[in-house]
Amino acid sequence: MKKAIRYLVNDKNLIWFGENAFSHLKTFIAKGDYSSIFFVVDENTHDLCLPYLLQSLGDLPRCEVLEVEAGEDTKSPEVLVQLWMVMSELQADRHSLVINLGGGVITDLGGFLAGTYMRGLPFVNIPTSLLAMVDASNGGKNGINLAHYKNRIGLFQNPEAVCVIPDFLETLPEEEVRSGFAEMLKHGLIADAEYWKELIEFDIAEEVPTEEMIRKSIAIKQEVIDKDFREAGPRKVLNFGHTIGHAIESLSLETDSPLLHGEAIALGMITETHLSQKYAALSDPEAEEIRSVFEEIYQDVSFLAKAEDLMEVIQGDKKNRGDELRFTLITQIGNGVVDVPVSKEDIIEALKLTKILA
Amino acid sequence: MKKAIRYLVNDKNLIWFGENAFSHLKTFIAKGDYSSIFFVVDENTHDLCLPYLLQSLGDLPRCEVLEVEAGEDTKSPEVLVQLWMVMSELQADRHSLVINLGGGVITDLGGFLAGTYMRGLPFVNIPTSLLAMVDASNGGKNGINLAHYKNRIGLFQNPEAVCVIPDFLETLPEEEVRSGFAEMLKHGLIADAEYWKELIEFDIAEEVPTEEMIRKSIAIKQEVIDKDFREAGPRKVLNFGHTIGHAIESLSLETDSPLLHGEAIALGMITETHLSQKYAALSDPEAEEIRSVFEEIYQDVSFLAKAEDLMEVIQGDKKNRGDELRFTLITQIGNGVVDVPVSKEDIIEALKLTKILA
Repeated sequence: MKKAIRYLVNDKNLIWFGENAFSHLKTFIAKGDYSSIFFVVDENTHDLCLPYLLQSLGDLPRCEVLEVEAGEDTKSPEVLVQLWMVMSELQADRHSLVINLGGGVITDLGGFLAGTYMRGLPFVNIPTSLLAMVDASNGGKNGINLAHYKNRIGLFQNPEAVCVIPDFLETLPEEEVRSGFAEMLKHGLIADAEYWKELIEFDIAEEVPTEEMIRKSIAIKQEVIDKDFREAGPRKVLNFGHTIGHAIESLSLETDSPLLHGEAIALGMITETHLSQKYAALSDPEAEEIRSVFEEIYQDVSFLAKAEDLMEVIQGDKKNRGDELRFTLITQIGNGVVDVPVSKEDIIEALKLTKILA
Repeated sequence: MKKAIRYLVNDKNLIWFGENAFSHLKTFIAKGDYSSIFFVVDENTHDLCLPYLLQSLGDLPRCEVLEVEAGEDTKSPEVLVQLWMVMSELQADRHSLVINLGGGVITDLGGFLAGTYMRGLPFVNIPTSLLAMVDASNGGKNGINLAHYKNRIGLFQNPEAVCVIPDFLETLPEEEVRSGFAEMLKHGLIADAEYWKELIEFDIAEEVPTEEMIRKSIAIKQEVIDKDFREAGPRKVLNFGHTIGHAIESLSLETDSPLLHGEAIALGMITETHLSQKYAALSDPEAEEIRSVFEEIYQDVSFLAKAEDLMEVIQGDKKNRGDELRFTLITQIGNGVVDVPVSKEDIIEALKLTKILA
């Protein structure tokens, strides 16, 4: 818990947990003297979470609710431009506050919306999915997709505050919880072997993660980001599993049964564990352990694609430099390394071993 | 000259002037080890300035040229999204450099493009209009228009460097030079009575401003911005003439004979000089002096609009807070004040005095 406690006093980010989060937020709003509040929600959080939030916050300045469709397709330039127009028509001004209430799609889109409207409005994230709690809502990355490139357009821009309400997890379908859990496992793999051990003993099929576990994941992520907010180097360690995972996710979004982000990242981590053996001296027993954990939790998750389609997306990945393909890998459980150049042949070989190639 | 010299050693912005600018830029590019360079140009700068630039820079990494139509209509979400797509198709990566070569439209649009692609690529501005040299290209504001709201969407994001090449002014039509001169006059009015005197003795109809004058304007702007990059307060002083001026410009863009930015701002400054007499104790003789200067230089510039149309745009201005209308005014030549609440009736009265109301 030390890390989490250290993290909570970090003055660069205000993260409020659990029961008291909304009373902190209420005070924050009162102090900010905002002219209006714009809530960004999807149809699910509109129905399941917004009433509870509004009730908890009590008296507020003028409120407007911007509802978008749930789902990754919403992170598009078209929706972004529509939201810009609506904000403008509803006369959002420089003293407006944006509150993003939803999963990663909402916090990514809403953060970029706020960050670019009138050159930047303040915004607060209230993540409602496990994935958004442990990953998307904090760390300052936001953005939209461009065709099949994930997060191609976006900003590094911190929210004013994040409210993490583990109770919201009770409203989530089981596979959504399992999807978020993949990012938590990643935090263990790249930074904390003890946390990894704790996580793999947890039965994610039966329970939702505790507040303490969520705090630990956020703490690990925050410790990385404190060193390198704009991802010049060390922050790339958070990308383990994501070069392959994003490519899988992108292609799967074009099919009738798209994978959830964490499901795709789980397949990405299995594949990049193969690469870690070859390129980062990850030991065979640890590699076996990692793969067996993912294969058990995500046993019903599968995806098939052509090598050339996957390679095309992988080659367009943001982490590359020119033609060279660079990966974040792990040297052992609890330690990631960044910017490892990997050959195309070995990527294809690893994809084969993960049984992804059609 | 003191201010300009102080400014040039400011390490937050690299601004290179005149003959040596391109050799500085050449060194900068070599040091940066970029994977590719994306030039943003319009048809004019493509033909008139790009060949000279490319010749001066010599050997470069892979170069791509993104050409957009000249004119304010280009600062739109549609063009922005197209450029995002083209950058992506041409595989711009995180190690690419964007070079904006053009007037304010190009530096505003290109800066926002670079600032949002892959969460921010480095960019260099090479302003080719007087307006862009003394205003748009430096100070870190960029963005696009949304319907008739100027710069509604954008960022505060500094370029890596700015190259100011006064020789480019020789390629400009006379009215473009005169348009940029309005911002220089504004710099005198808000911050430096001596500089104002120097400017009004200069015959802008016959000559283009000297490098020394351009340096002085940039220095004044930079001194303001150093105090308040994100326009929380003091930076708003640069908005003198712009609340009315932007409204006039926006409406004129919908007509067959749109005004240039500086022409609209000149009318804005005349109108806001009336308001400064009423709300900021500007003396009658100074107000007369200011108006006679603008009326002489911009004697052929006129615009007519309905009060309600102008008021609608003014009320949507970024500088307002809720329903209250706030202006930057001047208390005397050389001193601006910000956030002065002004009544609608007095705005309409001032517009009448400037003979803008249809």
